Amino acid sequence: MKIFIDNANIITMDGERVYSHGSVVVEHGFIQYVGEKISKPAGTDKVIDAKGGIVMPGLINAHTHSPMTLLRGCANDLALDTWLNDHIFPLEEKLYDEAVYYGTLLACAEMIASGTTTFADMYFMSESSAKAILEAGMNANLSRCVTGTHQNYKKRLAEGRQLFADYHGAGDGSLWVEHSAHAVYTCSREALGAVAHAAELDGCGVHVHLSETMKENRDCYSAYGKSPTEVMRDAGLFNVPANAAHCVYLSENDMNILEAHNVSIAHNPTSNLKLASGVANIKEIKEKNINVALGTDGAASNNALDMFSELKLAALLHKGMRLDPTLINAREALFMATLGGARALGRHHERGQLKTGYRADLLVLDADAPALQPMHDPISTVVYNGCGGHVVTTMINGRLVMENRVLLTLDLERIKAGVQRAAGRMGL
Amino acid sequence: MKIFIDNANIITMDGERVYSHGSVVVEHGFIQYVGEKISKPAGTDKVIDAKGGIVMPGLINAHTHSPMTLLRGCANDLALDTWLNDHIFPLEEKLYDEAVYYGTLLACAEMIASGTTTFADMYFMSESSAKAILEAGMNANLSRCVTGTHQNYKKRLAEGRQLFADYHGAGDGSLWVEHSAHAVYTCSREALGAVAHAAELDGCGVHVHLSETMKENRDCYSAYGKSPTEVMRDAGLFNVPANAAHCVYLSENDMNILEAHNVSIAHNPTSNLKLASGVANIKEIKEKNINVALGTDGAASNNALDMFSELKLAALLHKGMRLDPTLINAREALFMATLGGARALGRHHERGQLKTGYRADLLVLDADAPALQPMHDPISTVVYNGCGGHVVTTMINGRLVMENRVLLTLDLERIKAGVQRAAGRMGL
Repeated sequence: MKIFIDNANIITMDGERVYSHGSVVVEHGFIQYVGEKISKPAGTDKVIDAKGGIVMPGLINAHTHSPMTLLRGCANDLALDTWLNDHIFPLEEKLYDEAVYYGTLLACAEMIASGTTTFADMYFMSESSAKAILEAGMNANLSRCVTGTHQNYKKRLAEGRQLFADYHGAGDGSLWVEHSAHAVYTCSREALGAVAHAAELDGCGVHVHLSETMKENRDCYSAYGKSPTEVMRDAGLFNVPANAAHCVYLSENDMNILEAHNVSIAHNPTSNLKLASGVANIKEIKEKNINVALGTDGAASNNALDMFSELKLAALLHKGMRLDPTLINAREALFMATLGGARALGRHHERGQLKTGYRADLLVLDADAPALQPMHDPISTVVYNGCGGHVVTTMINGRLVMENRVLLTLDLERIKAGVQRAAGRMGL
Repeated sequence: MKIFIDNANIITMDGERVYSHGSVVVEHGFIQYVGEKISKPAGTDKVIDAKGGIVMPGLINAHTHSPMTLLRGCANDLALDTWLNDHIFPLEEKLYDEAVYYGTLLACAEMIASGTTTFADMYFMSESSAKAILEAGMNANLSRCVTGTHQNYKKRLAEGRQLFADYHGAGDGSLWVEHSAHAVYTCSREALGAVAHAAELDGCGVHVHLSETMKENRDCYSAYGKSPTEVMRDAGLFNVPANAAHCVYLSENDMNILEAHNVSIAHNPTSNLKLASGVANIKEIKEKNINVALGTDGAASNNALDMFSELKLAALLHKGMRLDPTLINAREALFMATLGGARALGRHHERGQLKTGYRADLLVLDADAPALQPMHDPISTVVYNGCGGHVVTTMINGRLVMENRVLLTLDLERIKAGVQRAAGRMGL
């Protein structure tokens, strides 16, 4: 299948390259050409006329829990312990495979509709998520989240390793499996070490929550006399490629550790505000030359999986907090959501940019959205005036998964019915 | 024209009333019925099937400068004085009537497309804005912004009074004219008093910028030995209905003054972050029983006019700043963007709620947007997972101005061409 995208205002994220009148040629899932406008190449099967709209790399959501779409809007505006203990944990007890499957499908539908092509996911009953992700045709780094003490983490880690054996590399490499240790406050020292060891054995990365709240840090110092970053390093989790979500409370020494071990950070500004965790010190983190990606977190704590909303907040929040309007410019924010995300997921050699030879993960924005006019600077347009609802077409691995706002791999009515069934069974 | 909206998930903002299977009947521009689902009434001219999607009051943008869409994305991520002095002010010098007309049309197109039905606007060459607003079929409180010292404010105020004479109440009451004093740092004491006096004479409200930055407060204390709130009160600006934008730096005494004079605040969280002004103390302001509305500010400092984005940020930001996840819940945020806005604009007797006898200003959200599923709580859905791009249909004064994402009063191609022409002439 050879696809020709014409009349595109292209943001490549390949250095500073943008093409205000450009073309993209995609064949066999890869980008064959991106640059100034050309004529329709011979053998073209399909033409997409972007009508002057922005064409850019698909967005990469570096931290989410996709099945939590099921719990979206069930509980808001509550103190963290009430939210978790009285709402989220009891509901999660009621989850079952089919619910996780439909919750993941809904998350994929939402991400595709808002231009996300790749995501890092951490949850449980992950085989059901794997099936849903493959069905949607998305790219993901999926992990079975390990929690627990000596007695009970082993079963979970075994499930994670089975997931790796069954699904790593599935969908022609679109699905990767990683291992995941939930956090220092939910995993024993032994569990953390076992996850690190499993990742070494399987040759994969790890995905963790790190220093999300002040309480996490305080409790960790009480238990270990060390910061969460130090505990994870000591457990060996940073000896493999690591994607650490949140990182709201890092010391200078913590940042040095993350930099030295080449750990990526998934910044989740919306979730950190909504759960009143705080604001990560992205200025200092970036000064340390630590790779920063961007994530939505799960739909119970955001409540959207819209990376456009996250992009804008990432570009706004630090300016306002530090009273410095030059902090995190539009390009830096977009980097987090594209190449920064690809690096955090170990996918930067083939995703995160529009570049010849790279996988064709891209989105097209509505040329007729008044909010996107005039377009003096396409990167500013995407970051400051874009929203998920402006995406009209999404392509993943050269395959159209949404065209003119119609989902092509997923049946939304079936998903809505499945989600409703699950909600009924779970008493939502 | 009698319109029947069926299969609606209705948020009324009339107390706690919501109807998950509801209907709305609109006739002669007013809401004739809103409530549980009924059969199509006799004499219906048009049926809108909401397909289970949310129907809610049109959003009210309580502070913007609509022609600034022309300058959107021209200058970002800069220090405030560089942004203003080297970019915005020189560009504003080049504005001309036709540019203001097309800029306002573009703003109206964007607002209609994202569900805003009423807005408060403060700028200049306002006759061109008035024409555009009437053409779009929107509601607005429009003001000619007065700045200046003894020598030069009079001409501007005279233009504002002429605008009042020519346009107040135009469009069957959709367009109101107010007077506007830009700020204490751009108006002399005499100019402030003259604007207050004009509002008293014309029996209208005033729209001002108030305590937007620390520098404004500091300079005001140096010049007057008083806070901006005290200076404006002393000038008489709060003896008439007043809508004060920003209010980032209010003292306890300032809040008492605003409460005593029934001044409304237009909270602009995005603009305040982007320009690194800071974060308004909405918790304390609300505790004072001061009415809080919500605004986008102009497109040069946001850069969108999307009230959904503003709603979400208003509900998130204060939680994260104060480390209290219960602050500004979803309903409080939505109140700011509906009834709170209507109060700030003096329109609450006929707008801001879906209620029998009120003007029919409403929007319909896409029932097929994955981001809006499942819908456990429609208000949470709108605030936390909605985005401007999810709006499919917008009605103002009972007239459809957008249906199924097609603008009905405005020709976007003509607007784009006009904006492009203006950009060319202004050297953008």
